[in-house]
Amino acid sequence: MRLSRYFLPILREAPKEAEIVSHRLMLRAAMIRQEAAGIYAWLPLGLRVLNKISDIVREEQNRAGAIECLMPTIQLADLWRESGRYDAYGAEMLRIKDRHEREMLYGPTNEEMITEIFRAGVRSYKDLPKNLYHIQWKFRDERRPRFGVMRSREFLMKDAYSFDLDAAGARVSYNRMVVAYLRTFARLGMKAIPMRADTGPIGGDLSHEFIILAKTGESAVFCHKDFLDFEAPPADVDFDDAGGLQAIVDKWTSLYAATEEMHDEAAFAAIPADKRLTARGIEVGHIFYFGTKYSEPMKAVVAGPDGATVPVHMGSYGIGPSRVAAAIIEASHDEGGIIWPEAVAPFRVGLVNLKPGDAACDAACEDLYAKLEAAGVDVLYDDTDERPGSKFATMDLIGLPWRLVVGPKGLVNGQVELKRRAGGAAESLTPEAALNAVLG
Amino acid sequence: MRLSRYFLPILREAPKEAEIVSHRLMLRAAMIRQEAAGIYAWLPLGLRVLNKISDIVREEQNRAGAIECLMPTIQLADLWRESGRYDAYGAEMLRIKDRHEREMLYGPTNEEMITEIFRAGVRSYKDLPKNLYHIQWKFRDERRPRFGVMRSREFLMKDAYSFDLDAAGARVSYNRMVVAYLRTFARLGMKAIPMRADTGPIGGDLSHEFIILAKTGESAVFCHKDFLDFEAPPADVDFDDAGGLQAIVDKWTSLYAATEEMHDEAAFAAIPADKRLTARGIEVGHIFYFGTKYSEPMKAVVAGPDGATVPVHMGSYGIGPSRVAAAIIEASHDEGGIIWPEAVAPFRVGLVNLKPGDAACDAACEDLYAKLEAAGVDVLYDDTDERPGSKFATMDLIGLPWRLVVGPKGLVNGQVELKRRAGGAAESLTPEAALNAVLG
Repeated sequence: MRLSRYFLPILREAPKEAEIVSHRLMLRAAMIRQEAAGIYAWLPLGLRVLNKISDIVREEQNRAGAIECLMPTIQLADLWRESGRYDAYGAEMLRIKDRHEREMLYGPTNEEMITEIFRAGVRSYKDLPKNLYHIQWKFRDERRPRFGVMRSREFLMKDAYSFDLDAAGARVSYNRMVVAYLRTFARLGMKAIPMRADTGPIGGDLSHEFIILAKTGESAVFCHKDFLDFEAPPADVDFDDAGGLQAIVDKWTSLYAATEEMHDEAAFAAIPADKRLTARGIEVGHIFYFGTKYSEPMKAVVAGPDGATVPVHMGSYGIGPSRVAAAIIEASHDEGGIIWPEAVAPFRVGLVNLKPGDAACDAACEDLYAKLEAAGVDVLYDDTDERPGSKFATMDLIGLPWRLVVGPKGLVNGQVELKRRAGGAAESLTPEAALNAVLG
Repeated sequence: MRLSRYFLPILREAPKEAEIVSHRLMLRAAMIRQEAAGIYAWLPLGLRVLNKISDIVREEQNRAGAIECLMPTIQLADLWRESGRYDAYGAEMLRIKDRHEREMLYGPTNEEMITEIFRAGVRSYKDLPKNLYHIQWKFRDERRPRFGVMRSREFLMKDAYSFDLDAAGARVSYNRMVVAYLRTFARLGMKAIPMRADTGPIGGDLSHEFIILAKTGESAVFCHKDFLDFEAPPADVDFDDAGGLQAIVDKWTSLYAATEEMHDEAAFAAIPADKRLTARGIEVGHIFYFGTKYSEPMKAVVAGPDGATVPVHMGSYGIGPSRVAAAIIEASHDEGGIIWPEAVAPFRVGLVNLKPGDAACDAACEDLYAKLEAAGVDVLYDDTDERPGSKFATMDLIGLPWRLVVGPKGLVNGQVELKRRAGGAAESLTPEAALNAVLG
């Protein structure tokens, strides 16, 4: 993409309403723009990141056997009356009346609707287990929305819902999602730790939050240091092997790990002193097993092996890609701007032409641009008339993994300059060598 | 995908509320499920089609130089007061109050919001032209929603917005979108004809609807028969060549073509009798040039070459992928079900195991399934215990381009059976020959 044709309205000043670093950087880097309190447009640069995050989430959901669908944003109030949550949900639910005065709402979550879809389509235990998910915009009418897309009112959520014949089957489905989440966050370039959690308004018996560590995290977390050395499960993990899944989950949940609200001082004190880790964390995923809480009142039943109908056991599993985008920035930035992990970077390479109009610079840039694009590398080519200092500041701000600079002085010696955003010195080398380094 | 693990709750009976064939077939084929009047969930099979349509739309928008962003669904009423449309829009706008009694709405279209984003980010004519688009859910509170996703209340729309310094530039931007649309609909497997249209509530001077021909279309259309032989512009069309674009647009808009409401009997009668085509059509796209209708009241101005600020000239360009899914079915079905064009088929191959549990059938199917998946072909593998007649009926209903049947009798002679959904006899051949035919 040529910057001269792109839409990247960088802000040089940090907007004063932004209280946390990810909010400031996302506004400054023209990733998002606020359209109302807690409601954001995703500008082109931000959307590229959001889509890369969603794609990784989707791939790992599919790998774990979950099946993608897409539910609408607007739901009937009557559906929520079936579960009893319509009145219970409170002011965070955006309640709407249509032109015929029918009571509707903008879905804050989809337990009721997916239960309705399941009960209409599945009759027998032979069709279980099932896990259906979607990636869709939700709305929670926060009283005081803030922190940008970290706590927005309209937000993107991947929510999966599992259906099993009994509690034992539901536990396997739960474990599949734990493994999928561990893989997902590792691929997103984050260290995420599952921590026991309260079930809140979703309800249920068993719940884990996935917390990533970030200096600027929203809450204190306490855990065993060995988590930092754990490797995520491999891509060829067998999701049909219940025992293997349980072993992975046991490994990741047997050591102490807790957020502030679930913290147990005594249990933490029992860890050897050199293994105690106190840090800040950000919640990036939340999973629940809640048994028959929805299937019973909503009559989502199947015929079991003995012919008797039983309500299915359910769980739900959420990751918010819009929130994750902000969380990654909280975990990975410096004073110059964002430092994107490769997997979610909006472009892999920022190609900077220091002197557009100079025949040698233009030719070298066009050649590098064409070769990188042909190799399938996402490149943002700064072909604008901005000053070099401004170009470098923009590249630091938007945080692309590689910066490749072409200037008239270097070209005299057949050299361009390559630098990693994550650190290390700029290196002078031939265009061919720079290409090889980037293509790695 | 193994059908035993998929979610495909086929309906054997046509639901009585469905008045048109696409609505009946989409419900029966478990592509969609109604969650409220005019509000549908996209079940897994339907979502695959919707995503394939959106991907083709996106590729052609990008090819034409449009840049993708993503605006939120909920908008501020005050934004619409700037253009004067908040009061003018009427009951089709879903008006909402949040917990602080602020007036909001669920966006039916995005002229106001994109104008706000543009005016905040662009200052100079040097940054023009720009075309920003998104693919997002919209809501229009139809008084009597019907015809399934053909006229739903919550619907998916790709809407692009162009910004130019003057009317001449805007005409080039308009032509780019005409060319992109011609390519888009051809790739979707449809014959679409641009027809002059009323501008309606969007306003403006110049507008075309893109109409596809379908026996069950919603309205009568009248056009020159030569349209049927026109080829869509090639993939390497030069979107920077204003003259070349104009020549393409001239070719596609110089012959007579009109919907009922714009029909001119006299002009139609002037066409040679053997070239007059009267048919039924479905609107699948609508584009507008409306000059400074929004930029003037909303002060979306740039500094021109002479330094004076001028309001930009705008156009908007819509395609509804959810509506297109239904329109394709209206244009391509038979009494047995849907006949998907290859480009948007949810799976390319339906692999039918006539006797699961039979060692030879299972082995042959697993081998074919693995080889097709390895070749990157989307396969739906029916490994269920259903009767053969029911399996064939399901495959006809869901309309996958190829049906590959493995049964014990054929395997004795080393043969499987291959059939195209679009027509032609079933052919007996070796598994290897069948693979080669499908991989083409």
